[in-house]
Amino acid sequence: MARWQPGTRERLQATALRLFQEQGYDRTTVAEIAAAADVTERTFFRHFADKREVIFAGQDDFLAMFIDPIADAPADAPPFALIARSLDSAGHFFPEERRPFSRIRQTIIDSEPSLGERELAKLATLKVRLGEVLRDRGIGEPAATLAAETGVTVFHLSFQQWIAEEEVRPFADIARERLDALTSMVTATAL
Amino acid sequence: MARWQPGTRERLQATALRLFQEQGYDRTTVAEIAAAADVTERTFFRHFADKREVIFAGQDDFLAMFIDPIADAPADAPPFALIARSLDSAGHFFPEERRPFSRIRQTIIDSEPSLGERELAKLATLKVRLGEVLRDRGIGEPAATLAAETGVTVFHLSFQQWIAEEEVRPFADIARERLDALTSMVTATAL
Repeated sequence: MARWQPGTRERLQATALRLFQEQGYDRTTVAEIAAAADVTERTFFRHFADKREVIFAGQDDFLAMFIDPIADAPADAPPFALIARSLDSAGHFFPEERRPFSRIRQTIIDSEPSLGERELAKLATLKVRLGEVLRDRGIGEPAATLAAETGVTVFHLSFQQWIAEEEVRPFADIARERLDALTSMVTATAL
Repeated sequence: MARWQPGTRERLQATALRLFQEQGYDRTTVAEIAAAADVTERTFFRHFADKREVIFAGQDDFLAMFIDPIADAPADAPPFALIARSLDSAGHFFPEERRPFSRIRQTIIDSEPSLGERELAKLATLKVRLGEVLRDRGIGEPAATLAAETGVTVFHLSFQQWIAEEEVRPFADIARERLDALTSMVTATAL
């Protein structure tokens, strides 16, 4: 077995996902994943804390994708413009070549309630972090929390649509459509 | 022990909440609740499926509070006006005399992760039902789902504020403030 190879982490991820899909998440062991990827278990654990984390790896990058564009925005940008920046940035995290992976990942998450809870916890963390970053910019309450919650809702609905069967539009277009729909909806009531 | 008394259900609820608070949710049994409320266990189970359901009783009424005012609305009401109607209606479900109960209930939910998950599931059901009811009125996607998700977010944030320590304003005022904040936020970006 190879001691170290470039791309080991990605190979472990692809192998784990294939095994989860073929034989079920519960019935797949770390030993099987390591063997099928031609590495030792020790190598597996150098990359991932456990088999669940194969599916949730990259959470720091995921959070940074939303947070960084807010940090770089002009000081007087209104909260919803900041959310729109975050969602545009999210488009880079979900390029076309990631879509098949994201679809398979979702079927695995849907098959196992504890994975669904972990995914919800990830979105809850994102809401909290976004709210903090908006408050750090001097945005008050309830605007900061509302913007954070609404932004994550729009992200989540856009992501669900992006991985829907037969959907072909890029993530950024889908997110923009939802932001626009929210704007017209809220404006229509205000009339 | 009394076989039947008016208000047995309410007495069981109040007793259960007191015991959960005093000795912990986990360490409280149905037998203890029944004894402290001066009824048999059989009577307890005539009112509640298990001790968890004491905390989540009334879910049908809770859903109806959001759904019914939408059914009664004029056919051409825009989606966000329907959500505003739902939230106004919610005010009747959370009158002042309910606030102390809601505060204690929340501390118990916060003490036990499985109760927190049950509460989230309740809100998820509300999102699904609201989305259905909006689609039944001919509101398309993504507007229907966005309105439902945003409405539940505004409800949840309003409820959290309503039970916050030192908060004295009625639920309807807090919800209206959040709806207005959302409207100004979204409108400010549109400029």
